Amino acid sequence: MSKYTIGIDFGTLSCRALLVRTEDGREIAASVSEYPHAVIDKELPATGEKLPQNWALEDPQDYLYSLERVIPDVIRQANIDKNDVIGICVDCTCCTLLPVDENGTPLCFTERFRSEKNAYIKLWKHHSAQPYADRMNSIAAKRKDDFLRPFGGKISSEWVFPKMWQTLDEAPEVYVAAKYFIEAGDWINWILTGRMTRGYMYAAFKAEYLPGKGYPPTEFFTECDPRLYDAVDKISGPIVNAGERAGTVCRSAAERFGLAEGTAVSGAVSDAHVGAAGLGISKPGDLFGIIGTSTCYFAVTDAYYDVPGVCGFVKDGVIPEYYGCEAGLCCVGDHFSWLADNFASAEVEKAARQKGISVLKYLIGLAADKKPGETGLIALDWWNGNRSVLVNGELSGLIAGMTLGTRAEDVLRALIEATAFGTRVIFDTLRSCGVAIDGFSAAGGIARKDPFTMQLYSDVLHIPVKVFASSQIPALGCAVYASVAAGSAAGGYDTFREACKVMKSPVDRVYYPDTEAGKIYDRLYAEYVRLHDLFGRGGNDVMMRLRKIADDARNN
Amino acid sequence: MSKYTIGIDFGTLSCRALLVRTEDGREIAASVSEYPHAVIDKELPATGEKLPQNWALEDPQDYLYSLERVIPDVIRQANIDKNDVIGICVDCTCCTLLPVDENGTPLCFTERFRSEKNAYIKLWKHHSAQPYADRMNSIAAKRKDDFLRPFGGKISSEWVFPKMWQTLDEAPEVYVAAKYFIEAGDWINWILTGRMTRGYMYAAFKAEYLPGKGYPPTEFFTECDPRLYDAVDKISGPIVNAGERAGTVCRSAAERFGLAEGTAVSGAVSDAHVGAAGLGISKPGDLFGIIGTSTCYFAVTDAYYDVPGVCGFVKDGVIPEYYGCEAGLCCVGDHFSWLADNFASAEVEKAARQKGISVLKYLIGLAADKKPGETGLIALDWWNGNRSVLVNGELSGLIAGMTLGTRAEDVLRALIEATAFGTRVIFDTLRSCGVAIDGFSAAGGIARKDPFTMQLYSDVLHIPVKVFASSQIPALGCAVYASVAAGSAAGGYDTFREACKVMKSPVDRVYYPDTEAGKIYDRLYAEYVRLHDLFGRGGNDVMMRLRKIADDARNN
Repeated sequence: MSKYTIGIDFGTLSCRALLVRTEDGREIAASVSEYPHAVIDKELPATGEKLPQNWALEDPQDYLYSLERVIPDVIRQANIDKNDVIGICVDCTCCTLLPVDENGTPLCFTERFRSEKNAYIKLWKHHSAQPYADRMNSIAAKRKDDFLRPFGGKISSEWVFPKMWQTLDEAPEVYVAAKYFIEAGDWINWILTGRMTRGYMYAAFKAEYLPGKGYPPTEFFTECDPRLYDAVDKISGPIVNAGERAGTVCRSAAERFGLAEGTAVSGAVSDAHVGAAGLGISKPGDLFGIIGTSTCYFAVTDAYYDVPGVCGFVKDGVIPEYYGCEAGLCCVGDHFSWLADNFASAEVEKAARQKGISVLKYLIGLAADKKPGETGLIALDWWNGNRSVLVNGELSGLIAGMTLGTRAEDVLRALIEATAFGTRVIFDTLRSCGVAIDGFSAAGGIARKDPFTMQLYSDVLHIPVKVFASSQIPALGCAVYASVAAGSAAGGYDTFREACKVMKSPVDRVYYPDTEAGKIYDRLYAEYVRLHDLFGRGGNDVMMRLRKIADDARNN
Repeated sequence: MSKYTIGIDFGTLSCRALLVRTEDGREIAASVSEYPHAVIDKELPATGEKLPQNWALEDPQDYLYSLERVIPDVIRQANIDKNDVIGICVDCTCCTLLPVDENGTPLCFTERFRSEKNAYIKLWKHHSAQPYADRMNSIAAKRKDDFLRPFGGKISSEWVFPKMWQTLDEAPEVYVAAKYFIEAGDWINWILTGRMTRGYMYAAFKAEYLPGKGYPPTEFFTECDPRLYDAVDKISGPIVNAGERAGTVCRSAAERFGLAEGTAVSGAVSDAHVGAAGLGISKPGDLFGIIGTSTCYFAVTDAYYDVPGVCGFVKDGVIPEYYGCEAGLCCVGDHFSWLADNFASAEVEKAARQKGISVLKYLIGLAADKKPGETGLIALDWWNGNRSVLVNGELSGLIAGMTLGTRAEDVLRALIEATAFGTRVIFDTLRSCGVAIDGFSAAGGIARKDPFTMQLYSDVLHIPVKVFASSQIPALGCAVYASVAAGSAAGGYDTFREACKVMKSPVDRVYYPDTEAGKIYDRLYAEYVRLHDLFGRGGNDVMMRLRKIADDARNN
């Protein structure tokens, strides 16, 4: 009798479930449910209140709504007995944080707080906590605390503590009423198991938790704000890593979602880090990543390395047994779409329509017809700030080299190249710090669907690029961990390495570098690095000053 | 009996004639004729040969074609006797240069050379002579010749000698067959009068001629290339200033264009410098300019000043009796249109159509709704290179500060602001060199039609901006000079000052600076200057290197 696990991937706009056969990793059924409210960044639905700049919320009710649909749907599609589903694992965007009471009820579900924006989920890309991150970083620097060292030396505005501090400062009553602040993935696990746990990836990469050391010291928090004295209490709980059991499906969840009571539930995982399991990464060697609207990169190593500006270098943080580190580009597909959506002329739109393809795809075709270097453009890919290695959300985009002959496809090509150069900066930084990398594995929408971009990455990086077949790498990674949480006795696996080997996605295609193109990209990359360092490392802080000027203008 | 003069303005794409009554400057009739071939920058019509990058030619036959239409047309419209037209003056873009034989026949009219691209008019914006300009500048710098000092210290690729040297190098047989290289305006005067003369403005500002000193020394040319030994011979001829008589209309021209034989013809003038006469500038005080696809600025002074990077500071060069200097922005309306034509989405286009206005006008409306500084963007307006004060045609455009919220109207506003900041750099440079400027006078399409941009200029410059009513400032200026060439005995004037006082355009509107907006623009201007100096003065030569990379890519 075959056994199955379900991987559940909570993304930014939708939740997808993937039902996978454990004996061979075959993807049997998938189901997607969009969140009814999507990202809440204009106004709060409960009240119509306009949200300030850089806010990005979600409603936890949307997550439950989607979960109630996708789990029964994959079991129904697969036409299997729910008792043959031996394990579940949830991934979610992070840090995607909500305040809950002692029962795990989101405060925004209560009458008292449904009108208060700070009671909702602050999504990973909620960027308005930047001033709190800045203050934390300056206090941490002054105190010479070393807790930030394994996390690239800086707290990002996307992480747990700036978001908590913002809540405390703007809505102290929410902060006080919140027994816990919890990652949405852990909150879903609480719903599934009836028990509060903390996914290790979340705790490590977003709340600076280190095994043996714990969270940052309380003195750090009280120096930031005396009212933060209980910050660590509000994020504490049993820490469970991927593949370890957070618990089993409780009766109420079994009824609600159509599962068998007692089904193993893995610790919740990061939607990005879990990709390693889907790609079958079980030893050092490759830089690997999910290339989509933004890109997360990971590497695993035998030892710890100090890598400035890389967001975390943590034991067991990406896959079991190894050190793992995370880095990323904040804006990849996002600014390709930005261009196609806002700067493609009616003529381009018409041509795309006549070809029956999207404007973006049409423009990529035009961009691909150019020779490397021919556009005369260079861009810095910082439309969403820079996550690695500069760790500065206030940086912004730049394009140089425009002439009257510059067209949308030239700009698009420059943006694509910029993300390849940004990737190479991460490569070069890791290597210069001693991390050995000799391959590149890619998954995600852009990796699968855009051969031009992947070839360009290979040329820029001078390295073969492996692209994987599965379109559901994060959910597949969850299914791998779910089978480990279930264990071999139930029809799963006892070790990550075994599960991974059998269940990983096959490689779909390998792109090999073009040496001649690579030489031209080396020249452009040298320009990229000069501009990157000039605008990113203090030579000219114009981008930060422009933000200040714009903020002042809006507030006047 | 009223008398009239005709000003004829040869622009980049069309020729216009303006018939003006001398007693009050009233514009009686105007006529425009587009050049059939427009700018020849893709392929040579005679052969279909593809033109290289940065070529911009015109066919002199187009100029004759237009002249044959516009002169009879204005006389017919005005319903006057051709004998009451007492004078004519031609302006033309410059340096817009063609090779001719000893009779003034353009070499491209001959069977021998009609297939040779170097035999056609090299338009002012023909930029492929840049390598020749670079070599001339480095040789001039090595020789420590001071002939360039009054011309900003550098030869522009747009000027006479780089264009001649390119012709010599690429098509020596054209160079040898050319008895003369002549500005198109002077060539038209040759057609009109039967006599070869050289307009003083052209000679001074484009061929570095100085009264009492002449052209640059022959040794300079032979050091550049021994074959240039006769370069000065090929551009020599009697020099005639604006308002002086180049001659009178000869019989063949009278018949061809419907004029009276013997009508006074003024020395040909620059289409930009002549604006001073249309604006009624007759003494020092204002910076004034024609703001259009590109912008030319002028100032007149009592004395000579050394101003680095300003293209010429020449006695009698802008108006009689004073020193005059020229500076300019290479790209003004040009890159506003570039944005509207290539980067406005179908949605924007539809909204503009529904309002019944152009895309550009619609976008300007959206841009105007923003507060100063709100876009968070800053741009360097170098889409066509930089004429003043950096004098480098290889510089290119830059935008910084982009986020996913950036829209076309934000970019447009940044471009408009950049041209205002570029103007302020010219202001500040002139002032820092001792030139007293206390006003700003503007004409041209943008000045007349775009109140938002003019208000912004006033705010950025902290100075009132006067805009003039005439839509034909250059042609009106020509009409002023034509009346001086005719003289009072014929019904014109004996001095420029008298003619100008009566015939100048009235002021249409004055924009006064907004102090609060000005403070914000001061912060943005500080950023502009930092980037301007960084990318323009050797801090980071990325733009020149990008051009080299692009050239290499195209040539491989």
